[in-house]
Amino acid sequence: MSSSPFHGLSAFPPTPADIHGRVDTQALSRLLERLCEAGVASIGLLGSTGIYAYLTREERRRAVEAAVECVGGRVPLVVGIGALRTDHAQDLARDAEAAGANALLLAPVSYTPLTQEEVYQHFLAVAETTRLPLCIYNNPGTTHFTFTRELLQRLSHIETIRAVKMPLPADGDLRGELAALREKTNLAIGYSGDWGAAEALLSGADAWYSVLGGLLPRTALALTKTAMSGNGDETQRLAGLLQPLWETFKAFGSIRVVYMLVEHLSLGRAELPRPLLPLNPVDRQRVLDAARPLIAQEMGLTPQSLL
Amino acid sequence: MSSSPFHGLSAFPPTPADIHGRVDTQALSRLLERLCEAGVASIGLLGSTGIYAYLTREERRRAVEAAVECVGGRVPLVVGIGALRTDHAQDLARDAEAAGANALLLAPVSYTPLTQEEVYQHFLAVAETTRLPLCIYNNPGTTHFTFTRELLQRLSHIETIRAVKMPLPADGDLRGELAALREKTNLAIGYSGDWGAAEALLSGADAWYSVLGGLLPRTALALTKTAMSGNGDETQRLAGLLQPLWETFKAFGSIRVVYMLVEHLSLGRAELPRPLLPLNPVDRQRVLDAARPLIAQEMGLTPQSLL
Repeated sequence: MSSSPFHGLSAFPPTPADIHGRVDTQALSRLLERLCEAGVASIGLLGSTGIYAYLTREERRRAVEAAVECVGGRVPLVVGIGALRTDHAQDLARDAEAAGANALLLAPVSYTPLTQEEVYQHFLAVAETTRLPLCIYNNPGTTHFTFTRELLQRLSHIETIRAVKMPLPADGDLRGELAALREKTNLAIGYSGDWGAAEALLSGADAWYSVLGGLLPRTALALTKTAMSGNGDETQRLAGLLQPLWETFKAFGSIRVVYMLVEHLSLGRAELPRPLLPLNPVDRQRVLDAARPLIAQEMGLTPQSLL
Repeated sequence: MSSSPFHGLSAFPPTPADIHGRVDTQALSRLLERLCEAGVASIGLLGSTGIYAYLTREERRRAVEAAVECVGGRVPLVVGIGALRTDHAQDLARDAEAAGANALLLAPVSYTPLTQEEVYQHFLAVAETTRLPLCIYNNPGTTHFTFTRELLQRLSHIETIRAVKMPLPADGDLRGELAALREKTNLAIGYSGDWGAAEALLSGADAWYSVLGGLLPRTALALTKTAMSGNGDETQRLAGLLQPLWETFKAFGSIRVVYMLVEHLSLGRAELPRPLLPLNPVDRQRVLDAARPLIAQEMGLTPQSLL
């Protein structure tokens, strides 16, 4: 295993599970096999679209064990260990390490809004329970916590905290944000929010934490490599092809889109955890129209042959 | 048991628990006994400051069973059953009903942002699993879900959904909001946000879902009765006495304040669930200064005798 878990394309697959939240480890392994074969830099297991927040400790352990067995060291496995309680996040860190994960992804999940100090102490307590490198999962859209740059700087002094997964900056100033974070921290800096990924990589980000990469890894890898090579024109062209799908991510939430596509790709059944609902027929059709040419490209087929 | 669970003062006690989230049922019973003796209209067990979001199903069941045994039908018991997953909320509804709860309080807890339809289906699915009356727990500050008035109207057509616990309106227009909701629904309408409670009751709200009432029930009852009788001047005077404490609720989050005061009232130990942290010494002192005269008043003592 040569690649860093926090550089390049980190592919975040959905976690196939039944309506009761029981993980389908066979379907999960089929998804992971595709990622390994495509050659992604790392796999982000149990991210937000991997429904970590909706799965029990036991099911999360089953998912990690199945993933370690399937991946077999070919690609670094980064495992989401977010939980509302600090002790639960610590339990999940120990479980993931014992199961053979290579790195951890920690989101400051909140119910009562958290202070900067509370999140610092939360990360410190979790870091102290594991030897694995940690990535800060900065996703205010789901955790409802906003990291200050001062907090990121403070967290970067904890030895095993090595990376941060950032949301796209509200003001669009990726270069400014990257410069500010590089000045304050030595963290590897990656971005989520697929529609801004190409721009983030062109601006010098270290990684793309990618929902698309979890389903269509070759397509996402082509974009990643082109952008990281600095080829702006070709990056824009590839990103343009993905735009219709990303518009559905923005309109419906990427989780509802990717769960629908797992089945469409014949990779198994994947039920959204209720209260999340499947898309209605009109919205499904819009996703299919956007995804069909991409799936064809991924499979090496022409759009016509899929119709 | 004569009073409605959704009219008058609904007192929300903290849930004493240890650092591992194990509920101290004896300390809980001491808190509940104070509420029964004071004569509150209902008890809101396992609300947000009752740390429901941080407790396991088993501990929540233990808390409800202890509460039913302690309260013994003297006051209606409204139990919080919020959970991220619909099936978990259904389990909690069944547990609470089986343990002897009188009504339920359901918050649309979210991680992935939810649609209006998803929340409607969530409430419908939970309502179908229990015969108990339900109150909609509308608290966007913690659930990050905003109910439209159309959704509240739609939910009010579900037979067992009888009440809504509203946050204070952002524009301050309580009378306008109450008129609009009364036109669209037949729900009992109550408010949380202690600092706006007096104004809400003076404006015609049916209930005050009160954090203060969980700790200092006589003080909260005096304010409730004065406001519901329409005595504006006396209401303002009583609310003014509470203002310094409410300023600490706003500054530090009411949960951090009430957990600190449980111990100060010699009612037992109550640990905040980490990552939540106890207040620092300076902030603690500010809370004590604000609370001391109120505690003295509640106990029928003078401030001087407590110093």
